[in-house]
Amino acid sequence: MQSQQPFPIRFDDLEQTAKKLLQHDVYEYIESGGGREETLYANTEAFKKWRIVPRFGADVSDVSLETTFNRKKIEAPILLAPIGMQGLVHPEGERATVQAAYEHGIPFIASTVASNSLEDIRSAKPEASRWFQLYYPNDSGIAKSFVQRAEKAGYEAIVVTTDMPILGNRERDIRNGYSPFALGKGKANYVQDPVFQGYVKEKDPHDYLDEMKKYFYRPSLSWNDIQTLREWTSLPIYIKGILHPDDAQQAVEIGVDGIIVSNHGGRQLDRCIPSIDALPGIKDRVGNQITILLDSGVRSGPDIVTALALGADAVLLGRPFLYGLTLGGKQGVWQVLQQLKQDLKTTLMLSGVPSVQQVDRSLLSRS
Amino acid sequence: MQSQQPFPIRFDDLEQTAKKLLQHDVYEYIESGGGREETLYANTEAFKKWRIVPRFGADVSDVSLETTFNRKKIEAPILLAPIGMQGLVHPEGERATVQAAYEHGIPFIASTVASNSLEDIRSAKPEASRWFQLYYPNDSGIAKSFVQRAEKAGYEAIVVTTDMPILGNRERDIRNGYSPFALGKGKANYVQDPVFQGYVKEKDPHDYLDEMKKYFYRPSLSWNDIQTLREWTSLPIYIKGILHPDDAQQAVEIGVDGIIVSNHGGRQLDRCIPSIDALPGIKDRVGNQITILLDSGVRSGPDIVTALALGADAVLLGRPFLYGLTLGGKQGVWQVLQQLKQDLKTTLMLSGVPSVQQVDRSLLSRS
Amino acid sequence: MQSQQPFPIRFDDLEQTAKKLLQHDVYEYIESGGGREETLYANTEAFKKWRIVPRFGADVSDVSLETTFNRKKIEAPILLAPIGMQGLVHPEGERATVQAAYEHGIPFIASTVASNSLEDIRSAKPEASRWFQLYYPNDSGIAKSFVQRAEKAGYEAIVVTTDMPILGNRERDIRNGYSPFALGKGKANYVQDPVFQGYVKEKDPHDYLDEMKKYFYRPSLSWNDIQTLREWTSLPIYIKGILHPDDAQQAVEIGVDGIIVSNHGGRQLDRCIPSIDALPGIKDRVGNQITILLDSGVRSGPDIVTALALGADAVLLGRPFLYGLTLGGKQGVWQVLQQLKQDLKTTLMLSGVPSVQQVDRSLLSRS
Amino acid sequence: MQSQQPFPIRFDDLEQTAKKLLQHDVYEYIESGGGREETLYANTEAFKKWRIVPRFGADVSDVSLETTFNRKKIEAPILLAPIGMQGLVHPEGERATVQAAYEHGIPFIASTVASNSLEDIRSAKPEASRWFQLYYPNDSGIAKSFVQRAEKAGYEAIVVTTDMPILGNRERDIRNGYSPFALGKGKANYVQDPVFQGYVKEKDPHDYLDEMKKYFYRPSLSWNDIQTLREWTSLPIYIKGILHPDDAQQAVEIGVDGIIVSNHGGRQLDRCIPSIDALPGIKDRVGNQITILLDSGVRSGPDIVTALALGADAVLLGRPFLYGLTLGGKQGVWQVLQQLKQDLKTTLMLSGVPSVQQVDRSLLSRS
Repeated sequence: MQSQQPFPIRFDDLEQTAKKLLQHDVYEYIESGGGREETLYANTEAFKKWRIVPRFGADVSDVSLETTFNRKKIEAPILLAPIGMQGLVHPEGERATVQAAYEHGIPFIASTVASNSLEDIRSAKPEASRWFQLYYPNDSGIAKSFVQRAEKAGYEAIVVTTDMPILGNRERDIRNGYSPFALGKGKANYVQDPVFQGYVKEKDPHDYLDEMKKYFYRPSLSWNDIQTLREWTSLPIYIKGILHPDDAQQAVEIGVDGIIVSNHGGRQLDRCIPSIDALPGIKDRVGNQITILLDSGVRSGPDIVTALALGADAVLLGRPFLYGLTLGGKQGVWQVLQQLKQDLKTTLMLSGVPSVQQVDRSLLSRS
Repeated sequence: MQSQQPFPIRFDDLEQTAKKLLQHDVYEYIESGGGREETLYANTEAFKKWRIVPRFGADVSDVSLETTFNRKKIEAPILLAPIGMQGLVHPEGERATVQAAYEHGIPFIASTVASNSLEDIRSAKPEASRWFQLYYPNDSGIAKSFVQRAEKAGYEAIVVTTDMPILGNRERDIRNGYSPFALGKGKANYVQDPVFQGYVKEKDPHDYLDEMKKYFYRPSLSWNDIQTLREWTSLPIYIKGILHPDDAQQAVEIGVDGIIVSNHGGRQLDRCIPSIDALPGIKDRVGNQITILLDSGVRSGPDIVTALALGADAVLLGRPFLYGLTLGGKQGVWQVLQQLKQDLKTTLMLSGVPSVQQVDRSLLSRS
Repeated sequence: MQSQQPFPIRFDDLEQTAKKLLQHDVYEYIESGGGREETLYANTEAFKKWRIVPRFGADVSDVSLETTFNRKKIEAPILLAPIGMQGLVHPEGERATVQAAYEHGIPFIASTVASNSLEDIRSAKPEASRWFQLYYPNDSGIAKSFVQRAEKAGYEAIVVTTDMPILGNRERDIRNGYSPFALGKGKANYVQDPVFQGYVKEKDPHDYLDEMKKYFYRPSLSWNDIQTLREWTSLPIYIKGILHPDDAQQAVEIGVDGIIVSNHGGRQLDRCIPSIDALPGIKDRVGNQITILLDSGVRSGPDIVTALALGADAVLLGRPFLYGLTLGGKQGVWQVLQQLKQDLKTTLMLSGVPSVQQVDRSLLSRS
Repeated sequence: MQSQQPFPIRFDDLEQTAKKLLQHDVYEYIESGGGREETLYANTEAFKKWRIVPRFGADVSDVSLETTFNRKKIEAPILLAPIGMQGLVHPEGERATVQAAYEHGIPFIASTVASNSLEDIRSAKPEASRWFQLYYPNDSGIAKSFVQRAEKAGYEAIVVTTDMPILGNRERDIRNGYSPFALGKGKANYVQDPVFQGYVKEKDPHDYLDEMKKYFYRPSLSWNDIQTLREWTSLPIYIKGILHPDDAQQAVEIGVDGIIVSNHGGRQLDRCIPSIDALPGIKDRVGNQITILLDSGVRSGPDIVTALALGADAVLLGRPFLYGLTLGGKQGVWQVLQQLKQDLKTTLMLSGVPSVQQVDRSLLSRS
């Protein structure tokens, strides 16, 4: 791939290159946001409200991207967001992605609706740091089964998504009449789950999808359900989709390990506050009592520095790695991560900060 | 209609589709605003100053759009704005619209200058919740006659428009040399009115329009006239076109039932404050002493949630339903309402709020 | 002219229509601003920072545009700005303009560098309200001569321009290599002036222009010169080009009759504060001690209401009437004024204000 | 050059004209910024946050651009920024530029990576005011050698660049696969340096570039290194790349002569604070204890007045003179400076300020 023409550097070029390779409705499914896509647009714009005020005088000969949380060192403050159905863009799907994450020393988060089951993903790279993202099924039996399978398969943390009581109103997908779920994608974890199979054992395999939908959404998901989850597993628990300081505070009180400040990449609630706008208020409220991750809109080294400065411990990367996967499978994801790490390193050096762990709010000025 | 190609989802698509079906000057009459159209543009932009900060933890399995005012339950906090001369876009005109409103359980507001008389509209769907919008005629005799006819025909409220002492300076219409009034549209209520006919009984029917204009505008409309109206009828009275907190306070003191915060969809005063910008100051002033409705710029579920959060009890929908009527008559209006209710429902679920009645200002953050 | 096609309504259409009729470099001379034209652009944008909050309840059956200052009633709070060399766009030049101003009952301000001498302009419409704008010549003898001729010719006020110590850096004109002065335009007042002729009587008439330039600019113009002017004439004196509150205060103390808050239509200093931005601070400083006029960027009824609300007693209209002159001579100017007055009247009615004299800052909200 | 077609006046025209003359990757190397070029764009936009509020009454017949610092009078508050490798755009390179600077009475700053060695540049115009910009080499021996050569060659000040611990992430250059360094440009000072040659004397001349890179970057550059530099020379020292008030304060304490508030023309850190945004805070902190220069985004007379008003003693001009060099060698640089001085002079006159030394913050208003 890289021999023919240079790998795109800017996110916009990456996206446009991927767009040419993808079926139009698949591309729109990936790129689109909820409603009029105000959130989608605001997510990237909001970062630009901040400016870095670089410092002179520190030795930046050897800047460090390493950070530690979840009691484990990672090579850069980046995790791969739990994007579902990665097989839509490349036959290797999550198997390719987890390998690239491993080579870069950062965690991969497997989606509930991955193209490959969580056991398959483990087999692709058993030694990788893998987390499991849970769309908490309406049926608690399946929920518990998923968590236990993840624990058994060596996943290191559970990420519970809270912003999917229903699918966002994705106008592009409605216009296209497209849904990967309707095509039967994203059901690998379900069809391989013993509890789920117990419910549907009499069914024709073609009915799996309808059944899966029945058990999928849990619009009643509550803090009690999080407490129940806490009882099921000793793995660290992260709550994804927190945007209000009161909810962040509640997460602290209920004893989870971290929160992910996220609006689902602009794919769910339209006119939602951008994650990066929500972050300072949340940090002010909970301080260091809990790990804070952030996603939605991260595209560059300066974006990561901005997020760290405003209180995030690390960020999740979404569409950029998926477009890398589209372009070049495992190698494409690797290249996107390589470029992003290089950009982050350069940004730190030019900011005069020797380590990601020394980035704080004093580095920023409001534009 | 829906069998040929999918019904447009975004307002912009809806508008563009309608544009192709309409005669150009009719389209411009509908879409245009006063002056340089600063108000028209600002109306939709102003909503974007706000962002929703969603909450986690409430059960949103069964979100409710129902609300109550005017001592009556409605199925969603939406009313159909009193757009005149709906026959311009579809032969069924208001008769189609009132039927669609009925099927969605929301009130229809008939304009003084409707294509169909208020009695005709009643006959199209007697059991529908119907309100009557009054351009208070210069001749008080006709004004009183209109109100009494509305009461007799089962209209449930009177909406007095205050922002039409003269037609706005609609530059597109002037350029086109177009006015539906000049074509004799919008006179149904006049020509069927016994008081009006008493004045003009000697006239040739072609002179009705000139006469109607004579009695139409009331640039001296005052609070005293509102009090007079209060004496004529026991129906609830709403004042439409209030944008200043002092006027809202005056409405409370004079004893009307509600106000409609509106700039007439940007069609009257240019450089006017957007309704959504005026709303918080008005709510701060009058609190819950009076029902507050809002129109001008409402296009989506997030728009409605924003309006409710800033203090509106419900919103009026204008151009979107008219374009629905253009595309598919009653079924087109129905479809627009269906989509909007679905968008509102999704927005509530994703905001973590189980009912429209629980939406308040804490849900918003200034962008 | 109006029989062939409708007269343009929006300023942009008016400008584009005029552009087609004018030689390109003449058009650019008129439309262009100083430097990168930041001031030119900001002048019109700055008005949009304000929104009108209309009121309900006043009788607007008969709104009045009349106002009084300079001890004289005028039919609308509008004056025609002292644009020079109007003969560039129409053979009748200022003679046409003064007639249109007269028919609308508003003052015409003759420029020092008019195409027609101040006596010629008087002869075109002796009964018109005419003011004389003075580029205070470097030679005080000529300055005094001009003022005395103006007084003798029935001009009612002297407007001293303070923002022309040198011509602005008009990049479009430099690129075009165009200057109407180089072509000998704008010298009518000089060549007909007895004092000026006394200096140059031995000269060939072709040398007039060089001489004129020598006497034209007065970069040392000071408050002392204004005091000297005060001694030469009993006419009211207005200082044009004031933008700082301290200078406005100084104008009060020196005893002139009024100031014109102006940045010369964006033609002189680039990155200059827009007039409408400067107005509130000036009004706060000098209150009603002095008449305050405003120009630069006025294009519509809402612009005039905004200026009046922020403290101006009236506005000066510039490019719009010049483009009217381009399109249709006297009748074109008349039409532009007619449309503007109608727009102003409509704006007042829709604002709920019965008279221009009742407009105050409470009518506005910051956008 | 000027005989064929007029010299461009606006920066945008100048840039576009130069673009046509340059090889595409050379043009992109010059014009590009770091990362997504947010800093590059913000640099020029940030100036527009300010508006000049002109004053009336001062005699501006003879405005003065002269200023004094570094114990020497200069004819305008402008220095030519230390752009490297000027030979890329014109065969005469820095030799042409220094001559033009001399003719305008302003200092020329020679880059460490100039196309011509510092001795060659001296020989082009020995009597010119020349400063030397130092990329402080990793090898202190070479650093000291450079400084001593500069002192010996009559350079009047040392400018130490602090914002180049590594090259910025220039995405356009990466895309183009272009680096002038890779082509062996910018090595004149190295290959002629006796200390450097001592290290590499065994080498084939083609290896010079690799060696140079080894000694070039000093990512450990610290305040101690500045103190060491202070011991090596009695020349005034300026630190270039300061953006934080604390660093400016540190520069005062360490005893350097001046700072240059700069983000390297947007070429290094992306999402960096624009220089003009950083200036007021720095001025507030250090006052007149130290000379303050500014670069990055200066394109016009109003830009210079803005910078002076916010606290700069003078500005550095970058890309504009380089494009002048592209268009016409020495004469092109001369013309750009001539136009800029004229624009500055006009701006001062129209601001009512007789001298650059009288410009202060009271001249500005926030837009």
